[in-house]
Amino acid sequence: MGAEPPSTAESRSSSTVPADHPGVAELFAVLAYGEISAFYRLADDAAFSPSLRGRVALAGMAAAEMSHFETLHTALSERGVEIYAAMEPYRAALDAYHASTTPSTWLESMVKAYVGDGIAADFYREIAGLLAPEVASVVREVLADTGHSEFVVQEVREVVERSPLQKDRLMLWGRRLLGEAITQAQYILAQREELAELVILASGDLSNIAALIDRMQIEHAERMSVLGLH
Amino acid sequence: MGAEPPSTAESRSSSTVPADHPGVAELFAVLAYGEISAFYRLADDAAFSPSLRGRVALAGMAAAEMSHFETLHTALSERGVEIYAAMEPYRAALDAYHASTTPSTWLESMVKAYVGDGIAADFYREIAGLLAPEVASVVREVLADTGHSEFVVQEVREVVERSPLQKDRLMLWGRRLLGEAITQAQYILAQREELAELVILASGDLSNIAALIDRMQIEHAERMSVLGLH
Repeated sequence: MGAEPPSTAESRSSSTVPADHPGVAELFAVLAYGEISAFYRLADDAAFSPSLRGRVALAGMAAAEMSHFETLHTALSERGVEIYAAMEPYRAALDAYHASTTPSTWLESMVKAYVGDGIAADFYREIAGLLAPEVASVVREVLADTGHSEFVVQEVREVVERSPLQKDRLMLWGRRLLGEAITQAQYILAQREELAELVILASGDLSNIAALIDRMQIEHAERMSVLGLH
Repeated sequence: MGAEPPSTAESRSSSTVPADHPGVAELFAVLAYGEISAFYRLADDAAFSPSLRGRVALAGMAAAEMSHFETLHTALSERGVEIYAAMEPYRAALDAYHASTTPSTWLESMVKAYVGDGIAADFYREIAGLLAPEVASVVREVLADTGHSEFVVQEVREVVERSPLQKDRLMLWGRRLLGEAITQAQYILAQREELAELVILASGDLSNIAALIDRMQIEHAERMSVLGLH
């Protein structure tokens, strides 16, 4: 996913958020609902696939989301948290993200699978650096690449290299994905106090949150560039 | 899946079909396309789910199909067979099976997930007994229970115990699933000579195929009975 930006939370200091902070279960719950909703979006997007190979690639990505879901399910059970109740508060915002970014072409679904997942992964990875190690390791595990990036990169690059029109459209699409993700993240943080506190603690302070958003934009641009969208 | 019927191919004798029989790659290919099509049927059926728990259960079953697909992908690659080309001849029949058995309610989708998978598993397990051990082990691995039977049994039993109407409907539905599966299996065997030869070899002879179909009907009835449909 491109070169590491200069200063991540991870490089700044050791853990500052205790493993028993109530925001940790909230973090696991929002990640868990994210996996389920990504599963069904990827499965739905297969309708656009021009080939059986594309359907298999999307099904493989979707299946990887479910293995991450199981990791979070276990982590929440170990904390005595019922996952279905815990996920409930996050359904509206994540469903809204997907509803506002429903692809209408195969290429849009490919860009979303790559860039959309990447934006979420950047955010969670940024805050993982200052979480207690046992919490950070769960977060990193469920953000592992679903192993199909190569397929997506190839599908998208091939088209945008020969079609400036498609390139322009997909660049706008990528910007919209970032914008909608930030909108929904802000909405979630405004509603969920304990999660917001965890994010602020994990970022250091509010000025660091601004720096975090800057870094996410840089990482987004790098990912777009890997797809030939620059 | 209930008690073992008296005489399966497995109990009769040691392997009679060599590992390099050309029907083996055909068998792996039809199993592989079966996994992909089951993945997408399960994902689509989630639209009927009355709860997030149901959506998670279906996604989990679908993800298990993909892990089986990967096993078959590896087994075919080891034989130098390109999986996409190999699956192609089986698409029409398997798509026709799913098109003719598209559930229209949540309970129908549950019964199909349980009974439909079971019918296929019985058939493949019957012939696995006389296949070369390295082939049989791949077949058994990909037929492993997807681990959500308990969820399905609970969802269905609860309703049919208190609604004779639902029970009648779902019994007819189960019969249709079996009928359509047999229709499509016959169509496939009529079209694919090498696979048909493998099945005949693995069953012993044609009279054993009749016995195999009898055993499958018994196993089907047992599975229906587990769901409270008897």
